[in-house]
Amino acid sequence: MDEVYRYIDEHADSFIEDLVRLVRQPSVSAKGEGMEDCAKLVEEMMLKVGLNARILRGERGNPVVYGEVKSEKTTKTLLFYNHYDVQPPEPLEEWKYDPFSGKVADGKVYGRGAVDNKGNLVSRLKAIQAYMETAGSVPVNIKFVVEGEEEIGSPNLEPIIKKHRRLFSADAALWEFGGTDRHGRPHLYLGLKGVLSVELRAKCALKDVHSANAPLIPNAAWRLVWALSTLKDKNEKILIEGFYDGVQPPSDEEIGCLKNIPFEEKELKEELGLKQFLRGLSGFEALKALLFQPTCTINGLLSGYTGKGSKTVLPREAMAKLDFRLVPNQKPNEILRKLKRHLEVQGFSDIEIVQYGSTEPVKTPVSDPFVGLVAKTAEKVYGNKAVIYPLSAGSGPMHLFRNLLGFPVVSAGCGHPESNTHAPNENLRIESFIKGVKFIAALIDDFAKW
Amino acid sequence: MDEVYRYIDEHADSFIEDLVRLVRQPSVSAKGEGMEDCAKLVEEMMLKVGLNARILRGERGNPVVYGEVKSEKTTKTLLFYNHYDVQPPEPLEEWKYDPFSGKVADGKVYGRGAVDNKGNLVSRLKAIQAYMETAGSVPVNIKFVVEGEEEIGSPNLEPIIKKHRRLFSADAALWEFGGTDRHGRPHLYLGLKGVLSVELRAKCALKDVHSANAPLIPNAAWRLVWALSTLKDKNEKILIEGFYDGVQPPSDEEIGCLKNIPFEEKELKEELGLKQFLRGLSGFEALKALLFQPTCTINGLLSGYTGKGSKTVLPREAMAKLDFRLVPNQKPNEILRKLKRHLEVQGFSDIEIVQYGSTEPVKTPVSDPFVGLVAKTAEKVYGNKAVIYPLSAGSGPMHLFRNLLGFPVVSAGCGHPESNTHAPNENLRIESFIKGVKFIAALIDDFAKW
Repeated sequence: MDEVYRYIDEHADSFIEDLVRLVRQPSVSAKGEGMEDCAKLVEEMMLKVGLNARILRGERGNPVVYGEVKSEKTTKTLLFYNHYDVQPPEPLEEWKYDPFSGKVADGKVYGRGAVDNKGNLVSRLKAIQAYMETAGSVPVNIKFVVEGEEEIGSPNLEPIIKKHRRLFSADAALWEFGGTDRHGRPHLYLGLKGVLSVELRAKCALKDVHSANAPLIPNAAWRLVWALSTLKDKNEKILIEGFYDGVQPPSDEEIGCLKNIPFEEKELKEELGLKQFLRGLSGFEALKALLFQPTCTINGLLSGYTGKGSKTVLPREAMAKLDFRLVPNQKPNEILRKLKRHLEVQGFSDIEIVQYGSTEPVKTPVSDPFVGLVAKTAEKVYGNKAVIYPLSAGSGPMHLFRNLLGFPVVSAGCGHPESNTHAPNENLRIESFIKGVKFIAALIDDFAKW
Repeated sequence: MDEVYRYIDEHADSFIEDLVRLVRQPSVSAKGEGMEDCAKLVEEMMLKVGLNARILRGERGNPVVYGEVKSEKTTKTLLFYNHYDVQPPEPLEEWKYDPFSGKVADGKVYGRGAVDNKGNLVSRLKAIQAYMETAGSVPVNIKFVVEGEEEIGSPNLEPIIKKHRRLFSADAALWEFGGTDRHGRPHLYLGLKGVLSVELRAKCALKDVHSANAPLIPNAAWRLVWALSTLKDKNEKILIEGFYDGVQPPSDEEIGCLKNIPFEEKELKEELGLKQFLRGLSGFEALKALLFQPTCTINGLLSGYTGKGSKTVLPREAMAKLDFRLVPNQKPNEILRKLKRHLEVQGFSDIEIVQYGSTEPVKTPVSDPFVGLVAKTAEKVYGNKAVIYPLSAGSGPMHLFRNLLGFPVVSAGCGHPESNTHAPNENLRIESFIKGVKFIAALIDDFAKW
């Protein structure tokens, strides 16, 4: 591996140039901005590295870029899941540099997508390049699936995966994100919570009326508030019948992992100005809740007059946006059905439910040998024992790979706690990036020997 | 009175011209648009009629125009309360004519304020003019108080009234609004509900966070929904301790009035697309609730993400605008105190209460002789028995006159159910306007003989 590492160090500048080039290509899926151009650029970068690359299209949605390189020695296959789309860069006024400038400063590459997920994608492509340029070939089959809708909930990925089951088959996969903490410890994630996003809409009279009519005319805002108040109580208990069915407490193995996670509770509270967390949770119990507790969150509320001062209006419509974060074995479709039933039973069958995205919860067992392999490689490269999250509090389409295609999936990457993922001044430390390239190269090597 | 009526008919065109002139002067108090100019125009019109007129100013707010003319024969005084400010004309695209054009068409004067309250104001001034021009003088003392902030809750009127108690003293007052129904029956109003407008604000973390943090971070939207749900139950019962203290059921006299009110229930339901009113109320019970039931109405809700689709945000703040309509003897200040106490007791002392306007409920008894006088005059002029509302479902600063100054107050005017008050295409039927001038002239005459 020394030769591979040397190649990586010698070519660091050109690797950074390629990352900057990719960051400079806007690809905001929420706005449909630059998606085709970015997919083509990813394809071009794959070809340049020496992968066979092509663009896959579904009936709708942004293209998926597929790339592969076969090993002559083995049928063993490692798949990388990444995405080329990014979050909207707003609020623009809070950026030090243009979010699509790829500005290099203070040993960092700045820009929307610098870490999530262009940095991770390029670190993986460059690891393959380094391996192929030094060893002449890859020691295992490599596949890349790079989608363009992760930041909007991957609404069109499932049919593509179902259609290309054989193309996407692998023995294991590395998921898109991860990184080290401030102490240089690599953090690995073995799963994701699921999510169900909905909008509840109350509609009453045909038009807004003067609030003097309140004794007679139904008020959409009240209908909505009453309906919402039946969903969750003040102690955060979700009141939908059967909501917690099948939810399992963390296993002993998972509790073991939780105990090794350095949870920066004090810092988080200070950042958010909180005296305490919900239900007074703290330490291990707080972390356990964060990862293993399903939730029901109001994301937004809107009804009637919301301007300055007062207006004596009785609103005809009201809406709430909600997301439910789900843990294994909750299914978004079943939760949606239970929510509908709940509203009916509670006397709110007048409230319309609009479904937005959903993903299923998913995890790879702590005991899966692939987890051990990734952790060992990470420890070797980073010089610190890996921190293992049996689940992440976030969500994504991992279940389509783990559950449909059936292989173990672990998430690891080149991020840093100060990378400002999804926030203004997103950046990737060049040091973390280069270390990340080495980690991926080492992982390929270890995977081949495994 | 025949000579007065003849003068009115002969001068109808010039009366309409004056009304058009006043309508053409914008005076939107919500936007502070044209207020000084409109006050000056009202003063000028008073002077032209032969009143002593002057502009009164408080420490803040739009000026009040005061006008008076003394009778040589009596100390008896009739006061008129009107306002020269109007509602914002929006939505502009729904107007047939420019809202400040004063366009005359189809036997109507169109424009914002045509009926509320410029039409009523001009009808009263012109009645004085007709009386003075024909009889040489008025048979009773006449006073006008014309404010410029009624449409924004009269926030600055109380100190002006307290300061000018003697100037505003009278034996009775005619309030700003009223009119006939589609069958030509004059409708009189003896009181108003009070109102308390507030905004509830929930604030939790210092910034919005990713909804993945929901197991730990308090959510302002949930805090607000839970707090609101403690205020009123699904059966419209307000749950604030002591909210209904002092509320009295309508008296036998008032019930007698209610039974004579032609309540157009079917038309209202059809207009709003409702199968039924709240709590299945109908007929007499619905009307009784409309006038005598205090209410708690959500006017607006806002929190977090309210755009298209979904966003996984956990909002740091949330707000609800509410109004409470109050009936005699509820006091806005006491209700505010009870609301505050309620939130504390229910565990929501973190929720901030911002107070906007408030007015007290007020009524003149059905048995007051002035009510009988106005009803008798109305019957004589309109040829139909007056419909008497012991209370109106709306609100306004009537209590400052009735309760502070102590005289009986009745509301009657020249409006029509199709006048579109507060709505696009507001208009005043010229026929109603001229009849309204005659009604006021007759009322002055009857008041003098009383």
